[in-house]
Amino acid sequence: MAKEQKKFVEDITSMDVDFAKWYTDIVKKADLVDYSGIRGCMIIRPYGYAIWENIQQALNNMFKETGVENVYMPMFIPESLLQKEKDHVEGFAPEVAWVTHGGTEKLTERLCVRPTSETLFCDHYKDIIHSYRDLPKLYNQWCSVVRWEKTTRPFLRSLEFLWQEGHTAHASAEDSMERTILMLNIYAKFCEEYLAIPVIKGQKTDKEKFAGAISTFTIEALMHNGYALQSGTSHNFGDGFAKAFGIQFTDKDNTLKYVHQTSWGVSTRLIGGLIMVHGDNNGLVLPPKIAPVQLMIIPIAQHKEGVLEIANQLLKSLSDCVRVKIDDSDKSPGFKFSEQEMRGIPLRIEIGPKDIENNQAVLARRDNGEKITVSLDNIKDEVIKLLDTIQNDMFNRALENREERTFSATDMDSFSKQLEEKPGFVKAMWCGDKECEDKIKELTGATSRCMPFEQEEISTTCVCCGKPAKKMVYWGKAY
Amino acid sequence: MAKEQKKFVEDITSMDVDFAKWYTDIVKKADLVDYSGIRGCMIIRPYGYAIWENIQQALNNMFKETGVENVYMPMFIPESLLQKEKDHVEGFAPEVAWVTHGGTEKLTERLCVRPTSETLFCDHYKDIIHSYRDLPKLYNQWCSVVRWEKTTRPFLRSLEFLWQEGHTAHASAEDSMERTILMLNIYAKFCEEYLAIPVIKGQKTDKEKFAGAISTFTIEALMHNGYALQSGTSHNFGDGFAKAFGIQFTDKDNTLKYVHQTSWGVSTRLIGGLIMVHGDNNGLVLPPKIAPVQLMIIPIAQHKEGVLEIANQLLKSLSDCVRVKIDDSDKSPGFKFSEQEMRGIPLRIEIGPKDIENNQAVLARRDNGEKITVSLDNIKDEVIKLLDTIQNDMFNRALENREERTFSATDMDSFSKQLEEKPGFVKAMWCGDKECEDKIKELTGATSRCMPFEQEEISTTCVCCGKPAKKMVYWGKAY
Repeated sequence: MAKEQKKFVEDITSMDVDFAKWYTDIVKKADLVDYSGIRGCMIIRPYGYAIWENIQQALNNMFKETGVENVYMPMFIPESLLQKEKDHVEGFAPEVAWVTHGGTEKLTERLCVRPTSETLFCDHYKDIIHSYRDLPKLYNQWCSVVRWEKTTRPFLRSLEFLWQEGHTAHASAEDSMERTILMLNIYAKFCEEYLAIPVIKGQKTDKEKFAGAISTFTIEALMHNGYALQSGTSHNFGDGFAKAFGIQFTDKDNTLKYVHQTSWGVSTRLIGGLIMVHGDNNGLVLPPKIAPVQLMIIPIAQHKEGVLEIANQLLKSLSDCVRVKIDDSDKSPGFKFSEQEMRGIPLRIEIGPKDIENNQAVLARRDNGEKITVSLDNIKDEVIKLLDTIQNDMFNRALENREERTFSATDMDSFSKQLEEKPGFVKAMWCGDKECEDKIKELTGATSRCMPFEQEEISTTCVCCGKPAKKMVYWGKAY
Repeated sequence: MAKEQKKFVEDITSMDVDFAKWYTDIVKKADLVDYSGIRGCMIIRPYGYAIWENIQQALNNMFKETGVENVYMPMFIPESLLQKEKDHVEGFAPEVAWVTHGGTEKLTERLCVRPTSETLFCDHYKDIIHSYRDLPKLYNQWCSVVRWEKTTRPFLRSLEFLWQEGHTAHASAEDSMERTILMLNIYAKFCEEYLAIPVIKGQKTDKEKFAGAISTFTIEALMHNGYALQSGTSHNFGDGFAKAFGIQFTDKDNTLKYVHQTSWGVSTRLIGGLIMVHGDNNGLVLPPKIAPVQLMIIPIAQHKEGVLEIANQLLKSLSDCVRVKIDDSDKSPGFKFSEQEMRGIPLRIEIGPKDIENNQAVLARRDNGEKITVSLDNIKDEVIKLLDTIQNDMFNRALENREERTFSATDMDSFSKQLEEKPGFVKAMWCGDKECEDKIKELTGATSRCMPFEQEEISTTCVCCGKPAKKMVYWGKAY
């Protein structure tokens, strides 16, 4: 018995009916990911991986412009090395995978599969940093890491995921602080300019900061359903790791000093953000700057004379300025439209016999469904202009959604009520005590997302306990 | 007490005195690699990683031109999945790392860290291949793999290494055979044109083929000391894995058939090859096409008026056509020369006050030490031409070395004697029996490297047993 041919375009769950189901439908049906036989580990398929390659390339360029160099560290960390920094091991040990056997032999010391590589970079820096001339060290690596999570979701939380982790060492506290903020700003710029995702920049509270950091900074994005997504973090370690690992250098004044360090990372989680910020009930919607295919040419009545020829001429003339493909398969145009929409390709050209007669083609936008008819004489300019417009409109639409879903609260009743009615960011004052953070989470399910750089004075007292407020905080339910 | 500043340029062991020590000296002193605290795992430092990035980029382009798409598979393989193909598991199980615990829990099934990912790709192909329309599948991934080796050496043999592994599925045996050879040819082209390393293309004997393959093809390079390095392999699996994993498709004739598969890979081992084919007693020598820095400008008497200015003008005018850097640090020119030579930068420009007076500069070649004086007016053309010449000369020199170290043998006495006097490739006839292969290894230490595509008839009888010969084989001691 022959297997049935797989049907590509199927209805997906409406995002208003079940957002979580809508998300996993898109992930599967836009061919981004497939599930593997290993719990919580995903297969990133060619289309999903092509998005990741575009993210990597753009970020790599931005990193290298600031002097960052790529390296590769081992994927294994000996248990004793992981334990060198007290806070760090407490944060990560409960969620690592342990290698206990190599071939048929039991290892004398367990190795964990890296959940993050601070300890390895520190161990290396200890060996290669001697003088102020060796500083700063601005290293980054692209790799996969493993965290033994209980519940997983493709891109958002998985046992193994791809990321980059930057690790730097500096001569002074000022330098490490400056680098921490520099990288946060690069992440913000990348998210806003490439992914068309507006972000709030700010600092994490002590409760939410990275294990072993003195301060953690974050960019927080708001998804279509009002949930927050921590989209990138940058940590300042001060000299804590340097003291634990003995990373010292001889400064210009000939005295031995500890280095000051940072680390910063973004991951394939960003692809989850792309889906949940821009996607709709027809599938994925990709911003042109990151889309593997920016433009799909779909010939109409392609069996008619001249249609495929003109369509292929268009392909050729456009391929030097946009990432363009043609779908000349034997599927129906309607089926091809659905496929292109499911995959979030920003723009399509429809061209049939009548269009050719009139020396024109139809441009259809994925983001808002608009169609315009343009002359074939200046279609190249129109395409370039339109891709630019789509990129900007997508950002503005995401910003609008965030603004519509950002509220202020001065008491817990209004905090809870607003969050329940329309999930989003709640701006509220905070006294600085962990007890209030815990209580807010207990009452509302919201966590502190960040203390934004752009502070406002919503009131003078803590939204929870009424004591004098120290900071305005963005709160929200989060992935 | 202040640590001493690290001395960069130190004498390295002469390759004639101790080739192995010479190799590890270069690996360390050219800043390619550092040792980590984990046995057999290396840290690839920025300079080493930049070479790998160049290798990746060139190969990626060549792959993509043939329709290959990149994906990412999980790094873990459940024990039961690894065991699905009998020969494959026998080949790999003895040398894998086993994860037995996730967090604090003992796993119900052990996971191995991938030594290679045939089993994962098969498991995925089983799910996504249904019809002839889904074929071919041409997937590749860039990742790290782990093999629990007893003795290790940076780049050549390590517990963890970086590589690419391509895995394809086809509708027919002809298609999979064609792809196997296509990828071997791409590897050969890449090695010869980019790495300036001449290779012998051929087929592995049954004894040396990949676990689970019906045929394995290889490119074999000869190192400076006459040892062979298997530099890339391409395997044809026929439908063996498809049957073990149940990967079937409905063909055009509406019958269910098994797919035919291939896999192929190269690794960071290629960097080991670069060192051992081109390096000399002053350090690394990199072919221009793969060198992270192709040209180093070294100002002479840079404190004198105008020197740094002109040197920087050169930097600027050359940077649009070559990967160029300037060393304007406060080290002496001699020290800078040694550094540039140790790192194998193909070309340097020396420019001082007298050169500037005469509107000229000195170009010094890394590969043969030649210096020529050129006018500043056409230095750009000279640089481009010279880099091209260096690339070609390096290939020809490597080819010459190989030819000088390739012998024919018709009996075991001359086989052993020649190999002992001057290690290299021995061309000799073989009857096809594993017993003779084993005996030749026992007597001489040489293994069969490949049955080359270009067969010659050295004699009509097996060099070992005297029975009628089936194939001419390249034999050699190998890494």
